[in-house]
Amino acid sequence: MSSHTITTTSAPTAAPAVPSTGRLRPLGIDAVRITGGFWGRRQSVNAAATLPHIGERLESEGWLPNFDLAASGALPHGRRGREFSDSEIYKYLEALAWEIGRTGDASHEERFRAVVARVSAAQEPDGYLNTHFGREGQGARWSDLEWGHELYCLGHLFQAAVARERTRPGADDLLAIARSAADLVCAVFGEDGIQSVCGHPEIEVGLAELSRVTGEPRYARQARLFVDRRGTGSLADIEWGRSYYQDDVPVREAEVLRGHAVRANYLAAGAVDVAVDTGDGPLLDALRTQWANTVARRTYITGGQGSHHQDEAFGEDWELPSDRAYSETCASIGSIMFAWRLMLADGGAQYADLIERTLYNVVATSPAADGRSFYYANTLHQRVPGIPADPDGTSLRASSSLRAPWFEVSCCPTNVARTFASLTAYVATTDDQGLQLHQYAAAEIDTTLPDGQRVALTVETNYPDDGVVRVIAGRSSRAPWSLTLRVPSWAEGAVLRAPGEDDRVVAPGTVTVRRAFEEGDVVELDLPMQPRFTHPDPRIDAVRGCVVVERGPEVFALESVDSAAAALGEDVSDLRIDASVPPHETGGRVYVRAVRSNTGSHAWPYGGVDVGTPSAPQEVPLVAYHDWAGRGPSTMRVWIPAS
Amino acid sequence: MSSHTITTTSAPTAAPAVPSTGRLRPLGIDAVRITGGFWGRRQSVNAAATLPHIGERLESEGWLPNFDLAASGALPHGRRGREFSDSEIYKYLEALAWEIGRTGDASHEERFRAVVARVSAAQEPDGYLNTHFGREGQGARWSDLEWGHELYCLGHLFQAAVARERTRPGADDLLAIARSAADLVCAVFGEDGIQSVCGHPEIEVGLAELSRVTGEPRYARQARLFVDRRGTGSLADIEWGRSYYQDDVPVREAEVLRGHAVRANYLAAGAVDVAVDTGDGPLLDALRTQWANTVARRTYITGGQGSHHQDEAFGEDWELPSDRAYSETCASIGSIMFAWRLMLADGGAQYADLIERTLYNVVATSPAADGRSFYYANTLHQRVPGIPADPDGTSLRASSSLRAPWFEVSCCPTNVARTFASLTAYVATTDDQGLQLHQYAAAEIDTTLPDGQRVALTVETNYPDDGVVRVIAGRSSRAPWSLTLRVPSWAEGAVLRAPGEDDRVVAPGTVTVRRAFEEGDVVELDLPMQPRFTHPDPRIDAVRGCVVVERGPEVFALESVDSAAAALGEDVSDLRIDASVPPHETGGRVYVRAVRSNTGSHAWPYGGVDVGTPSAPQEVPLVAYHDWAGRGPSTMRVWIPAS
Repeated sequence: MSSHTITTTSAPTAAPAVPSTGRLRPLGIDAVRITGGFWGRRQSVNAAATLPHIGERLESEGWLPNFDLAASGALPHGRRGREFSDSEIYKYLEALAWEIGRTGDASHEERFRAVVARVSAAQEPDGYLNTHFGREGQGARWSDLEWGHELYCLGHLFQAAVARERTRPGADDLLAIARSAADLVCAVFGEDGIQSVCGHPEIEVGLAELSRVTGEPRYARQARLFVDRRGTGSLADIEWGRSYYQDDVPVREAEVLRGHAVRANYLAAGAVDVAVDTGDGPLLDALRTQWANTVARRTYITGGQGSHHQDEAFGEDWELPSDRAYSETCASIGSIMFAWRLMLADGGAQYADLIERTLYNVVATSPAADGRSFYYANTLHQRVPGIPADPDGTSLRASSSLRAPWFEVSCCPTNVARTFASLTAYVATTDDQGLQLHQYAAAEIDTTLPDGQRVALTVETNYPDDGVVRVIAGRSSRAPWSLTLRVPSWAEGAVLRAPGEDDRVVAPGTVTVRRAFEEGDVVELDLPMQPRFTHPDPRIDAVRGCVVVERGPEVFALESVDSAAAALGEDVSDLRIDASVPPHETGGRVYVRAVRSNTGSHAWPYGGVDVGTPSAPQEVPLVAYHDWAGRGPSTMRVWIPAS
Repeated sequence: MSSHTITTTSAPTAAPAVPSTGRLRPLGIDAVRITGGFWGRRQSVNAAATLPHIGERLESEGWLPNFDLAASGALPHGRRGREFSDSEIYKYLEALAWEIGRTGDASHEERFRAVVARVSAAQEPDGYLNTHFGREGQGARWSDLEWGHELYCLGHLFQAAVARERTRPGADDLLAIARSAADLVCAVFGEDGIQSVCGHPEIEVGLAELSRVTGEPRYARQARLFVDRRGTGSLADIEWGRSYYQDDVPVREAEVLRGHAVRANYLAAGAVDVAVDTGDGPLLDALRTQWANTVARRTYITGGQGSHHQDEAFGEDWELPSDRAYSETCASIGSIMFAWRLMLADGGAQYADLIERTLYNVVATSPAADGRSFYYANTLHQRVPGIPADPDGTSLRASSSLRAPWFEVSCCPTNVARTFASLTAYVATTDDQGLQLHQYAAAEIDTTLPDGQRVALTVETNYPDDGVVRVIAGRSSRAPWSLTLRVPSWAEGAVLRAPGEDDRVVAPGTVTVRRAFEEGDVVELDLPMQPRFTHPDPRIDAVRGCVVVERGPEVFALESVDSAAAALGEDVSDLRIDASVPPHETGGRVYVRAVRSNTGSHAWPYGGVDVGTPSAPQEVPLVAYHDWAGRGPSTMRVWIPAS
């Protein structure tokens, strides 16, 4: 860990992760307000459409009524949903808690309290809380650690309770419910308890944060026990190996993320919490290495992770097929949790770079514009047009098809909702020198620096539609402080304009302006937003000879609706880009020059294949990947063969 | 169907498929004897090692003892194995039947009779035969058509009985066992019976052949009913869609194989049988189209099929990843069944081309040299060295690792065994004009042509080690007849030498020599065996920019054991071939010129990747794909990036 560590103040910080120490200190969602633009629109849709949609589905699917059945003693008869359905109620509560903290909306508050009451009624006197286990006719408590998800569900309960306590402290029973359950977990799984872990990590991060909120050291110790036990083979071996649930190698010995991509990231996030809170440098070093290797060799251009459908898992190094990309939405949310925690610990811009990439190109891709349907998996190459989901139906999880309103395994909608509701927490941090801006959105920031100075900033920007980010001081400061801006890794040639300084080109990484700001001072970062071709590492076999078009933080895709309109046909499998002509922007759309290869039909596709006479080149517009399939079923590719 | 159809004689033909009509007539395994070489060695190992190995495992795994438990009324207690384990006993019996027919080996005969007796004892009085269903404590008969595999198992029973009846007619009870079970199937699933099908096709081909052997038309009618019902949605919808078991589209409307690759091929083979026996031209046309589209767009260079691990299924057109190739051994055996039936119907060399490719590069790849371990899935790119299987253990099915002695789902070893034991059936056929040689192996052929002439031929060849195939007439003929030789699709520049003719270059397809042969006449086909680069259709994204090396019918691979020895390192992910230097053969091995790219380590693998300074070029030997991993754990790739 860097020697420049700070200790957080005792005041509650309304953020999802509030480490005890670290290079950077998170700002609460009460200190940052996104006022519009790309993310502002998504927060509004999340509040107005997604949260009500989730609430309705949790009722109609029976997953919330399961708690009523538990309270009335009517279980197991009538229980509906998979073994982990309780967790969706907790993620929904977490999302509501952040949303209430963000806006104070009364209807969300009313709904929150009603749901908490129903959860409370289902809790057993000893703290046990799960609708799928422990009753006559159900499996015994903790009898199926591999697949039962009991501790996983409680981890999400703890995160919900933490969100509520950090936004509306003492407002209701949720923290008490969580403490009671956590006390039971410590008793059952403590030093002398069951020597095992949950098949799906999540309890680790939940316990760590619960310890931070409550000051209860037993929860932190239990989180550590779970991290230390992982990788010792306490879970049963399975078809895909124990790597599936990271029980193959101890966390501190692993060199890369592997196995189920959501599990891997949730575990890593919780392990960072444990490492930071216990000052465990070797553990933190191991996690830094795992992050770096995973990003360098096992991550899609979108930031997505996981290339195996079968086990929703990471593949080997360089195994990143576009057409079989799994890139589960939840894995990316886990990746953001992991990267953010490392950033708070270390302060590196590379973590915020990955978070930005992942937010724009996976998290923003999942929900439809109306916030009522979602991608669970995020393919990078759709070979046949998807099939519209039944708007009243429940879809299977991973079909590479169109966005669906709900899934049998519906982890992604609630995960998107809690992320959007807490999004302002990822915009900025502070340290002893000042304030750091990591993500760019039209925003108001109002906080107090460690030296006691109050700082008010307005961020004016249309980013990512254009690259100008203006940070305006809202009050004069009595002493100099440092405003640090992230310069994204792709932003070669970015220009900084600051009061009293000559304009200057700044390199990717971070740039700092230190001064006693006067009210009205403007620091402007001008990021280069012309679209660009990006080439892959030649070891990624699946996209050899292809390029992707990026513009700012956004990845673009070629969709058949556009290729057809450009007289290049409906089938994107036979198109190629003229890479000698740079992509260009016209009328708000990004264009490339492309030809149809007109590869003929052959009895055998190897050897002697006539590649035909290409069509005349055409200018064809691309679509931001997060918007793909927004115009109905289509074929699509992110990586495009280049000639 | 072609107008040049023939009707088979009433004499039993000892072959796996004996259609009632067709362009070509199969020869029985008694008419052809492989005398050595590539396939002769494999038939010997199959007889001496694989069959005993299977016999031992069927005992030790409890799959054959399940029949004893059934007979003694001790089921379901103690039953072992998956729901379809009975089928392995039947495939083992089929393999033994062909082997006994081939060699008359007494110990195999003794074993065969003992197993038949145990199967017989397990059959219910009404003909029902399955150790997993129908007893107290088990699922009811036919209660799980999607996954129960009852009809699938019976299909294999029928194939075993057919093999026995065609090689040792009337020798034991197996045909009676099969008839009794088939009668029950007709009663239960007939016109007015259960209006559904088995989740795993196989009964169709089994019933069709059983009808041919017994002359019982009800079995053929039942096969037709099952084919006609397929694709009408009588099975439950599942996560991967009804295409998984081909219940999405009626067989006569489908345009390509899809879903589970073994299921798809078994169904198609049975549907050809039905189409041929009932003169259903439209159905046969649909199957020809499916075959052509599948071969043109959904088949690996090895002949392997199936690119999805999750559902062991075909992917979309052009979705042929090397590293995630599933290419199940059994799917290739099903592909041979399908192609062979179309060839008997139509006579096209393209079918024998695919069979040859598939035999050399998938079926021969599965078993180890000692015949006691097997690949279930056949990857084309091994990214990390495999892990040796426990020689006494039971492996999971699809790990891309090293060959394993047995699997929890152990369909492949028995399928390989029955294919090797009956391999001579695929060597040659006859028609009214004469005899056709489809596969080249050192062999003796002795048969009678439809005009009554007895023909004896010796095939002398070291193929595929060299390309000279000499066919020597063993007796003089009284009238002219046509000897037709297949010229493989890759054999550009093949030379034919025939008595009384000038040597001539012959084009891929077939070449015919018609004459009244004199004893000792030699027809020689000289096939070009220099190694060659083969390029993929540019629409196959996964191998863009790569080449494969082939030599004759064999596909070659680059293995780390060789790249390391050639000073190019252990990791094949960073190697590329100099495609301007043709592959060449030296000292019996095939070499290419390759460099290590030395791509650096990067924090992010997209954009600005330093591809490094390549190493000095080295000559590196390749290995025949069927031999890969024969020298221990390695990384491997079939498709190699070319510069």
